[in-house]
Amino acid sequence: MAQTEINTLGEFGLIRHLTEQITPQQPTTVKGVGDDAAVMNYGGKRTLVTTDLLLEGVHFNLEYVPLKHLGYKAVVVNLSDIYAMNGTPTQIVVGLGISARFPVEAIDELYSGIRLACEKYGVDLVGGDTSASMTGLTISITCIGTAEEKDIVYRSGAKKNDLICVSGNLGTAYLGLQLLERERIALQGQKTGDEIDAFKGREYLLQRQLKPEARKDIIAALREAHIHPTAMMDVSDGLSSELLHICHESQCGCAVYEDKLPINYEAAKVAEEMNLNIVTCALNGGEDYELLFTCDIKDYEKLIPIEDIYIVGHITDAADGSILIGRNGEQLPLKAQGWNAFWE
Amino acid sequence: MAQTEINTLGEFGLIRHLTEQITPQQPTTVKGVGDDAAVMNYGGKRTLVTTDLLLEGVHFNLEYVPLKHLGYKAVVVNLSDIYAMNGTPTQIVVGLGISARFPVEAIDELYSGIRLACEKYGVDLVGGDTSASMTGLTISITCIGTAEEKDIVYRSGAKKNDLICVSGNLGTAYLGLQLLERERIALQGQKTGDEIDAFKGREYLLQRQLKPEARKDIIAALREAHIHPTAMMDVSDGLSSELLHICHESQCGCAVYEDKLPINYEAAKVAEEMNLNIVTCALNGGEDYELLFTCDIKDYEKLIPIEDIYIVGHITDAADGSILIGRNGEQLPLKAQGWNAFWE
Repeated sequence: MAQTEINTLGEFGLIRHLTEQITPQQPTTVKGVGDDAAVMNYGGKRTLVTTDLLLEGVHFNLEYVPLKHLGYKAVVVNLSDIYAMNGTPTQIVVGLGISARFPVEAIDELYSGIRLACEKYGVDLVGGDTSASMTGLTISITCIGTAEEKDIVYRSGAKKNDLICVSGNLGTAYLGLQLLERERIALQGQKTGDEIDAFKGREYLLQRQLKPEARKDIIAALREAHIHPTAMMDVSDGLSSELLHICHESQCGCAVYEDKLPINYEAAKVAEEMNLNIVTCALNGGEDYELLFTCDIKDYEKLIPIEDIYIVGHITDAADGSILIGRNGEQLPLKAQGWNAFWE
Repeated sequence: MAQTEINTLGEFGLIRHLTEQITPQQPTTVKGVGDDAAVMNYGGKRTLVTTDLLLEGVHFNLEYVPLKHLGYKAVVVNLSDIYAMNGTPTQIVVGLGISARFPVEAIDELYSGIRLACEKYGVDLVGGDTSASMTGLTISITCIGTAEEKDIVYRSGAKKNDLICVSGNLGTAYLGLQLLERERIALQGQKTGDEIDAFKGREYLLQRQLKPEARKDIIAALREAHIHPTAMMDVSDGLSSELLHICHESQCGCAVYEDKLPINYEAAKVAEEMNLNIVTCALNGGEDYELLFTCDIKDYEKLIPIEDIYIVGHITDAADGSILIGRNGEQLPLKAQGWNAFWE
C-alpha cells in the first residue's frame, strides 16, 4: 500500500482530502462541512453544531495551563464557532479521556472551568462520555446552538466593496503563549501561569491565551445596530488564514491595511522585547477568538459607534487577489501561516 | 490539596460526581445528562445529541482492529444511542486526533469505514475537527438525531409488570473480543482479525465485536407493530448494568430468567472452550449494541411475530430488587459488572 505522510497534505489539505467525497444526503442538512458550524433544519429554528478536539501536548501543555482555565477555554472555543454563525449556543456535550495520573480533584478543577463557562454564556452541559486514557488528557466538546434561518451568516456571503471588520485585537493570544513558553522552564510545575513574577503587567496577554472569551457581546451589538454581516468567522488560526477562507468561499479578493490592524499596546511591547514582528503576530497568531466579518458599506455609519470593532480593509474582486497594504503603500500577498499542529 | 484516585469512585461514580451539580437552565433543554442521548426542543421536532470518545489502547487495539472496521464501529455506537431513544440519527460530527505514524492511506481506511456507516444508516457527516496527536489515535463522534416528542423513549418509563425484552443475542461481542485477545500474539501485526485461521467458523463472533450494527430494524419493526416501549436503552456495558440503570431511573425492580437469555450457539461453544460461563458473558459482556426495552404486557401479542426480539423477564416493584432467576428457580441479585475502563 502506498504510504503518504500526512504532512505532505497539510491540515487543510487533509481535511479537504477526507471530506471532498462527502455530499449531504439528508434533507435536514442545510450546510455540512466547511463553515464554523454545520446547519440543520428540523422544522423549527435552525440547529447549529460544531466540535473541537483538544489533545494534551498538541493543544495545551499542562505545565503552564491551569486545569480550570483549560476547561473554560475548551468550552469558549466552541461557543465562538456558534457566535461566528450569528447563532446562540445553547448546549454542549463533553467527552473526557483522563489518565490515571489525575486525581479526582484535578478533574473537578477542569470541570469547574467548564461549568464556569457554561454559566457565563448561559449554556447547558447536557451529556458526555468519560473514560480512562492510556496517554494524555483528551477533551472533546461539541456545541449545539440555534439561529433563525434569516440570521445565519456563512463564510460565503462577502461581496465586492464590503467592509472587512475585526473585533478586539489580534496577535495577543499568540504573544501570551510565547511568554508562557519562555517561562516554562522556570515554572518546573511549581506555579501556574498566573503566579509568575515575569508575568507582572502582562496579565492581559496571559488571559488572552489561557482564558479567552467568545464575542457574544459583538454579536449582540451588531444585532442591536441592525447590522447583518455578509460573511463571518472567528479568528482561531490567524487573520490571514481566516480571510483567505472567506475570500475562497465568497469567490472574492481582499485588501487589508497594515496600519488598521488592531494591536494591543502591551502586546506590541512584548513583541519588540522578543524580537517578533507584531504585524506578523497580528496576521498569523492564532487563538484570538475574535470575530472577523464583512458587511455592506452602507452599514458604515451604524458600525462606527460600536465599541471594539475595527475596519481593517475591504473586499475586492477575486482577480485582485488577497493583499496586505503596508504603511508605505506596498502590497504583499496575504498568506495562511496560521497555527498548524502537523508542522509544529 | 486532597488527592482522590479516580478508581475509588468508579466510572459511574465519577460521572455522577461530575454532573450532580449540573442543572439545565436553558428552556430548550428537555433532558440533560443521564439517558442515551440529550433531548432539546428548538421549536420543531425534538433534537437528540449523543457523543462517544474512543481512545487507542482503551477502546480499541490497532493490533487486531482494522481501521475501516474501527471507523464503522465508531459511528454505529453513536447511532445506537439515538435509536435507543426511539429517534432517527441524521448527522454526525467527527473529531480525529492522528499521530504522525499514520500515513494518509490509513486515515482513508478509517474514513472509508465512517462513510460506509453513514451511507448504510442514511446519516450525513457534517463537520469535524482533525489534528495531530502526540500519542495514540483518538476518535470523537457526536451524533445528532430527531424524534417527535411523543415518540421519545427514556430510561425512566418502565412500570410494574412490563415485559423486559432484548433484541439479537447477548455476550457474543464479548466472546469475539476474547477470541481476538487470545490470538493477538499470533498476529504480530501481520494479519487482520478477518484473516486468522483460528477464527474460521467464528466470523460471526468477530463481526459482532469488530463491526457491530445498530438495531435500526428493531426500531422500525416496533413502530410498524404500534408498540411504544415504556423504557429503552442500548446494551453497551452489559445487560445487568443496563437493566439496573432502567430500574434506577424508573424506580422499579426486575426479574430476569436465565433460560430466556438469547445466546448464540457459536458463542456458547467458544465460551465452553474458553472456560467462560456463557450466562455471565450474556449478563456482563459489553458492546453488543442490542436494544433493551420494556413494554406494556398488553403488547405481548404484537411482540410475538417480530423476529429477533426476546422476552427475558418482567418489571417488578422496587422493593423486590433486581434479580436473576436461575434454571432451577434460584434467585440471584443482578450486579453491574460491565466493562469499565478504569478497572481493566
